[in-house]
Amino acid sequence: MKTVFVLLVAVVCHSAARYSADWTSLDGRPLPPWYDEAKLGIFIHWGVFSVPAFQSEWFWWHWQGQQPPDPKCVSFMTKNYPPGFSYPEFARHFHAEFFSPGEWADMFKASGAKYVVLTAKHHEGFTNWKSVNSWNWNSVDSGPHRDLVGELGEAVRNRSLHYGLYNSLYEWFHPLYLNDKKNGFRTQDFVKQKLLPELYNMVVRYRPELIWSDGDWEAPDSYWNSTEFLAWLYNDSPVKDTVVTNDRWGAGCACKHGGYYNCQDKYSPGQLPEHKWEKCTSVDTLSWGYRRNMRIMDLMDLPTIIEDLVSTVALGGNYLLNVGPTADGMIPAVFEERLRGVGAWLQVNGEAIYASKPWRVQMENTTRPGNCLVRMITDMNDAVKAFQVKLRLWETQMQQCNLPHFPCCQVVLKQLSATTVFTNDHFADKLSALRTEFVRRFDDFDAQKINFDLLRNPFTVDVETAPVEMQMELLELQCNATLKAK
Amino acid sequence: MKTVFVLLVAVVCHSAARYSADWTSLDGRPLPPWYDEAKLGIFIHWGVFSVPAFQSEWFWWHWQGQQPPDPKCVSFMTKNYPPGFSYPEFARHFHAEFFSPGEWADMFKASGAKYVVLTAKHHEGFTNWKSVNSWNWNSVDSGPHRDLVGELGEAVRNRSLHYGLYNSLYEWFHPLYLNDKKNGFRTQDFVKQKLLPELYNMVVRYRPELIWSDGDWEAPDSYWNSTEFLAWLYNDSPVKDTVVTNDRWGAGCACKHGGYYNCQDKYSPGQLPEHKWEKCTSVDTLSWGYRRNMRIMDLMDLPTIIEDLVSTVALGGNYLLNVGPTADGMIPAVFEERLRGVGAWLQVNGEAIYASKPWRVQMENTTRPGNCLVRMITDMNDAVKAFQVKLRLWETQMQQCNLPHFPCCQVVLKQLSATTVFTNDHFADKLSALRTEFVRRFDDFDAQKINFDLLRNPFTVDVETAPVEMQMELLELQCNATLKAK
Amino acid sequence: MKTVFVLLVAVVCHSAARYSADWTSLDGRPLPPWYDEAKLGIFIHWGVFSVPAFQSEWFWWHWQGQQPPDPKCVSFMTKNYPPGFSYPEFARHFHAEFFSPGEWADMFKASGAKYVVLTAKHHEGFTNWKSVNSWNWNSVDSGPHRDLVGELGEAVRNRSLHYGLYNSLYEWFHPLYLNDKKNGFRTQDFVKQKLLPELYNMVVRYRPELIWSDGDWEAPDSYWNSTEFLAWLYNDSPVKDTVVTNDRWGAGCACKHGGYYNCQDKYSPGQLPEHKWEKCTSVDTLSWGYRRNMRIMDLMDLPTIIEDLVSTVALGGNYLLNVGPTADGMIPAVFEERLRGVGAWLQVNGEAIYASKPWRVQMENTTRPGNCLVRMITDMNDAVKAFQVKLRLWETQMQQCNLPHFPCCQVVLKQLSATTVFTNDHFADKLSALRTEFVRRFDDFDAQKINFDLLRNPFTVDVETAPVEMQMELLELQCNATLKAK
Amino acid sequence: MKTVFVLLVAVVCHSAARYSADWTSLDGRPLPPWYDEAKLGIFIHWGVFSVPAFQSEWFWWHWQGQQPPDPKCVSFMTKNYPPGFSYPEFARHFHAEFFSPGEWADMFKASGAKYVVLTAKHHEGFTNWKSVNSWNWNSVDSGPHRDLVGELGEAVRNRSLHYGLYNSLYEWFHPLYLNDKKNGFRTQDFVKQKLLPELYNMVVRYRPELIWSDGDWEAPDSYWNSTEFLAWLYNDSPVKDTVVTNDRWGAGCACKHGGYYNCQDKYSPGQLPEHKWEKCTSVDTLSWGYRRNMRIMDLMDLPTIIEDLVSTVALGGNYLLNVGPTADGMIPAVFEERLRGVGAWLQVNGEAIYASKPWRVQMENTTRPGNCLVRMITDMNDAVKAFQVKLRLWETQMQQCNLPHFPCCQVVLKQLSATTVFTNDHFADKLSALRTEFVRRFDDFDAQKINFDLLRNPFTVDVETAPVEMQMELLELQCNATLKAK
Repeated sequence: MKTVFVLLVAVVCHSAARYSADWTSLDGRPLPPWYDEAKLGIFIHWGVFSVPAFQSEWFWWHWQGQQPPDPKCVSFMTKNYPPGFSYPEFARHFHAEFFSPGEWADMFKASGAKYVVLTAKHHEGFTNWKSVNSWNWNSVDSGPHRDLVGELGEAVRNRSLHYGLYNSLYEWFHPLYLNDKKNGFRTQDFVKQKLLPELYNMVVRYRPELIWSDGDWEAPDSYWNSTEFLAWLYNDSPVKDTVVTNDRWGAGCACKHGGYYNCQDKYSPGQLPEHKWEKCTSVDTLSWGYRRNMRIMDLMDLPTIIEDLVSTVALGGNYLLNVGPTADGMIPAVFEERLRGVGAWLQVNGEAIYASKPWRVQMENTTRPGNCLVRMITDMNDAVKAFQVKLRLWETQMQQCNLPHFPCCQVVLKQLSATTVFTNDHFADKLSALRTEFVRRFDDFDAQKINFDLLRNPFTVDVETAPVEMQMELLELQCNATLKAK
Repeated sequence: MKTVFVLLVAVVCHSAARYSADWTSLDGRPLPPWYDEAKLGIFIHWGVFSVPAFQSEWFWWHWQGQQPPDPKCVSFMTKNYPPGFSYPEFARHFHAEFFSPGEWADMFKASGAKYVVLTAKHHEGFTNWKSVNSWNWNSVDSGPHRDLVGELGEAVRNRSLHYGLYNSLYEWFHPLYLNDKKNGFRTQDFVKQKLLPELYNMVVRYRPELIWSDGDWEAPDSYWNSTEFLAWLYNDSPVKDTVVTNDRWGAGCACKHGGYYNCQDKYSPGQLPEHKWEKCTSVDTLSWGYRRNMRIMDLMDLPTIIEDLVSTVALGGNYLLNVGPTADGMIPAVFEERLRGVGAWLQVNGEAIYASKPWRVQMENTTRPGNCLVRMITDMNDAVKAFQVKLRLWETQMQQCNLPHFPCCQVVLKQLSATTVFTNDHFADKLSALRTEFVRRFDDFDAQKINFDLLRNPFTVDVETAPVEMQMELLELQCNATLKAK
Repeated sequence: MKTVFVLLVAVVCHSAARYSADWTSLDGRPLPPWYDEAKLGIFIHWGVFSVPAFQSEWFWWHWQGQQPPDPKCVSFMTKNYPPGFSYPEFARHFHAEFFSPGEWADMFKASGAKYVVLTAKHHEGFTNWKSVNSWNWNSVDSGPHRDLVGELGEAVRNRSLHYGLYNSLYEWFHPLYLNDKKNGFRTQDFVKQKLLPELYNMVVRYRPELIWSDGDWEAPDSYWNSTEFLAWLYNDSPVKDTVVTNDRWGAGCACKHGGYYNCQDKYSPGQLPEHKWEKCTSVDTLSWGYRRNMRIMDLMDLPTIIEDLVSTVALGGNYLLNVGPTADGMIPAVFEERLRGVGAWLQVNGEAIYASKPWRVQMENTTRPGNCLVRMITDMNDAVKAFQVKLRLWETQMQQCNLPHFPCCQVVLKQLSATTVFTNDHFADKLSALRTEFVRRFDDFDAQKINFDLLRNPFTVDVETAPVEMQMELLELQCNATLKAK
Repeated sequence: MKTVFVLLVAVVCHSAARYSADWTSLDGRPLPPWYDEAKLGIFIHWGVFSVPAFQSEWFWWHWQGQQPPDPKCVSFMTKNYPPGFSYPEFARHFHAEFFSPGEWADMFKASGAKYVVLTAKHHEGFTNWKSVNSWNWNSVDSGPHRDLVGELGEAVRNRSLHYGLYNSLYEWFHPLYLNDKKNGFRTQDFVKQKLLPELYNMVVRYRPELIWSDGDWEAPDSYWNSTEFLAWLYNDSPVKDTVVTNDRWGAGCACKHGGYYNCQDKYSPGQLPEHKWEKCTSVDTLSWGYRRNMRIMDLMDLPTIIEDLVSTVALGGNYLLNVGPTADGMIPAVFEERLRGVGAWLQVNGEAIYASKPWRVQMENTTRPGNCLVRMITDMNDAVKAFQVKLRLWETQMQQCNLPHFPCCQVVLKQLSATTVFTNDHFADKLSALRTEFVRRFDDFDAQKINFDLLRNPFTVDVETAPVEMQMELLELQCNATLKAK
């Protein structure tokens, strides 16, 4: 009886759950759960910009869009190309001859990521699939002569990864867009003839579970028809139940409307946000697209990435780590090393990452197993090597427990008392000690970086030079671990 | 008061002169007079097809469109290009580095042509101007990086030549077109998003005095919205008073609707048509676009061209002679030789060509000087060398005089009686003699080609080997000419 | 017995006929007879220079060799190529994809030429065959990937044409040559490591019947080892009996040593030379190699070529007419037209050309016609182009009058005696015959004149505009013609 | 008195020390000391092969040389290039636009290397400098249009690194070489016209301190004129005092004649050799030249490299670590990471590496302080950070001493007993002390091991997978450590 009723309600809710094309309605949609559980995604910036592969994926704009242009880009073209060479002519050299979607997907899988987001179309307007609205300016008509979006999607899904597509709303140099812009966005020729037909087609054709919208900032969402699109996406599209989007749907939307929040590139909140968010960042700190002249000093090293991942997840964010493939279709070896390095780390420490619970408003009233703290504490047993990572997670979560309006931790505390591993007393003491410890800890947060130094260069670890208060703690924890192992 | 009245009348007249978007109305529009007087035009097929410059401007279609493809095209690509090379990638090599619109226009002027028609867009869809509806597939974004349509237009007009633009309605591979076609032309996405916006823009921007429409045959004019466009063109466009069009506005339109008639490529009517027409033909008999491997045997020689021109004009047609420039921007020297050869001939004989009167219905009631026949007859005096050409003109016109419903010649006859040179009797006799002569002549029309052989290869002329009946005739006519000159 | 003796003598003669490596000996070699009988040859300049095809086959030198460089060449490169683009990189675009040696040879055969000379290696050093001394800088290793010299040779010989090879001694930029040059040509590294091994190989491999040497002027023949090479060529090479060479074998050799004389490019002697010579000239008056931007005004027209041919042959020269094929491997249609035009003319007039007798040293002691007649006739020589072509032919025929079996000329001489221009005494019979001949001749002069005029520009015949000195003569002749016609 | 005499002899010897062109003499030349002290060098394979960057720097041979060809190479070309594309045509794309010799040299300096060896010419024959014997097939005439050898040399020397040049004797496809080969190497055209002039020029021009000869194996040293060249190099060249060479100077020379020994690529001797040697190896285990499609699994990771370096130096070898730059002129970031990683390690542990003493045959007869062992033992004192390196060195050497058939150590032992510093007893004591020292030392071995393991992959430490011979020792040491910890 009860079940029937619930189902009935569900059906009713479902029919009632149609979203209207306004932010109030759209913002109320619960985030499909896969996303929050995914934690780590791989971002791929690939396009015609991968051919010059100079400066960044914004090369075209820096060369010929902005005023004045970037002199480095101008000089690069002057020195290496004949006068009059135009950006679209790069497309021919987007060969992708080594592109093996299976190998890419294997690598992403090995990184421990749970979703993959490919630029279906960046600001240059070139689509990595055969868009009928982008004739001769797509990867099937030109360059690779392959359906990159489709091929990667299949490979990614075959490995049980979620597949998302990045789509830029604006196109720097599309004449229809430029015209609308000149008209103060009072005309919508670009949106109606180019953007939306293409976007709908893309969703229907590739069924992305994530639409990573970008390039929205020059015009209001009313110009882009964003709410209409999202209403369709949530109500009627073939991915209505699973699709996730971000917050770039028009000037002023970032950090405010849409699905999860990116806020801005590489943004990290100072404290635990109330809304699900994602930090997107790039191994190459200077570019999202491949740069042929990148230097090792420009890249995040593995410890930095792991630290960044942990910090992000600790604050409830997903971590979308970008790599830029070459025009040949390779993920540069140094990026592969990073991805596999993250994967190796997650192989050992992943449980703490993936199990970290979401703090989404929408989920606050659901019952959830309160063993996150327990698990974290017991996790201490087995890994000296991952110690500092977990410590960070644990710190963060503990920090939140102090806030009375944060019920999650209260549940955790309650349930912890029932475990066999820790008695109430034991737990209380521990908590007390921990809390005290935390207060002390957060005073000298800087000292913590010694932990990360272990990862960064294990041979320059100098225990004795670590802050005195850290030495003791480390030793004690190690001892605990040893004892527990017995 | 008076002014008001005049204005009122003007408005009334104006509103009365508006064409409605149906063939009955549109077909009733008088042909702007410049066109019939022009007689000779130059046609230019220039586009991305000028890069492979193989087989013809239909290369793309023959290679990848038709089923089965032309094995020569397939083999050409296989032998000379890497696998996967696509047609749009040719665009980059459309350099036009030698394109000098002034030199072209000088050459066209020197050919004696009065109008020039450039392919603004052929079936490949590549526009030779910066169409906002053809982003990255036009001559400004790619290849030449120049406004070919604009540059040539200015040069042509500076030399008092009329400027026309060829525009293909369909585009072989445009995805929107292919989709409409798949839908049995019940959708019009291509027409509304691509064709028409582009065509209107083109007219407004370049003010062509001739729109040479093509590529209409796969769909009815209702799909193309042809009548709506023509109504606008005739009523409201900036060239409404002077623009001329042809008859390719939809399946079934050719030879039936529109402006003048092309009927079909290289078409010549068997007898004098009642409607103004144009014969378009190409120096290279195998292609309209440049072919890198053309042989001299494939080309019309100068006498053939002149004969064709004369035949065409004699039957009231205009002659639109095509040359295909190279991707470098040159009119090949052999074409230049033909054009300048025609010009040299017209320098001497042009009066007879340009003065030949139109037979358009619309002009039948206008007063015209009746001395065309006289002039033609006296013209015989000065040119043995042009004899056969004028003979042809004269023959044709005389032939028409036999038709009682052809008032033009009656006027001529009337006016001839007033001349001092010929009395009525004299004229009658002459006519009679001529008619008799004609009967005889047309029996052995083939023998006439000896005349053209003089042009074709002056060193192989062998008068004695000419048919006996021709020898006498030639001598007699020459004598007559000499005597008359005295 | 007799036969044995003859054979013995032959052997003795043969062994006595060895040439020593000095000019006295080498210059004494009789010219193999095929050459003097050939009269017309086709010259082909084809190489990497056919790729830029700009300015001339000297492009590389004008761009980067001479000081200061030709600003047009510099500007051409700056505008159309990336900085640092070097000449050797053009080689890749020397595709020759349309090169059909059979079609070329057919065309040359049709031109009436009896020999064909191809640039085996021009000053750029690129060999059109796989020279082991020019690794990666030849047509088999780069560009066409074909043995152009070999392929054309086979086709040419299959049509019974003689095959010659142009070979440049110096190479503008060869580092070994530049070094020898820097050393005042006291070292011979280039000659010994590059030039001679290659040249010997070329002769042995392709057995050219003509070696058209060039690029000799910077160094004496002693640097080039020319006499040694020629001694080998005449004594021991596989073509020792038939090979012909020209006179470019070292500074100071031209017009003085070697085989026949070229003296200088496009050189014509003012009077009949005592040594067999050849005039080489090019349809494109501005270049020997193909120029993509050639204009018709830059080209010799057919009458000019025929006049030039006749003048040359009349003075005992051979005529080597050059065409520059495209990098694609085509003889441009306008050149094909010239070649076939010459062929058509020779079809009719060839007897006079091919039958014209040589004036080689070997013939100087034979009885020649009293050359006062020749002189008289040569007075006419300077006459204007159309007219003097005929006169030249006529001169040539006059010269043949010594031959008793040539009755035509005997008649001519008889008729000439009636003219006022020549005294009766001196020429008596001859003039009388000539005069009679004239009367006969002028019967059809009109027709002939028309032929010429038509050729030039058939519709602009205008006697009054002819050069003054010609007008009188022409009028008189025309009168005769007119009178005769009555 | 004795000393004076020795000095006198030395002076005499010096003037008498000219080497004759035979191996006995040449092999007797002492190795210039800089080389043995250098320990670590960077090897750079850069050339036209860096453009296809597929399979390896042997691409050309595998594609078109060997029979049958490597199907992968054939397929790569078929899929990606037009038919007929030839290897030399790759040269054009050897752009080197990002090549910054200063940045490279900084990187090499940072790696701790003391010398750098660049391929001046690999088997393809393309010279990275403007060789006059390799016209149009060198980096100045084609591709980069820069003197790569010169530019890098200057940068390298400015950072006090030694500069060496790799030079291939044979050239796979050089026609002169192929011809000599066909002649069973009884002709030497290639050697005399190409190889030697070029090699002498190279030495004089760039004064390399190391000539890394290669490509010698197909012909005996008598064909290459190797001994003559080396005699000149050692006697008269501008680098006669400092230059070092390897052992690839003709079939059968490897491991036997010349300077130091490479024996074969990546060769490591099983025991301490008597002759100075060098192990050359490549970060990319599958290629020396850059491969665009390399995967991280194909690369040596940092611990592997360091282990290899240590093993090599421990056995008296130098370690020449190869990286393949891109055609653009970049050292790929993943290689940069390896080089800087080695450098960081050497920063800490370098003293042990650089101070390790040579075991050159040439020095065996000189009086040398028998303190190698002593120094090693005392060296232990000063470096916690270098401990494990020395441990390894010591392990290896000790391990050898246990083998009775290992005369080197016996000699050492014998000689040690003769020194005044250590008596036999003393040596025994030292050994005893050493053993004791080990006990103490191994106290903290565990921590050290973690460092290694961390370096490798800090989270996947697995003792059982260590080399068998190490396991016992490690276990014992670990036990000690554990005991000690109590």
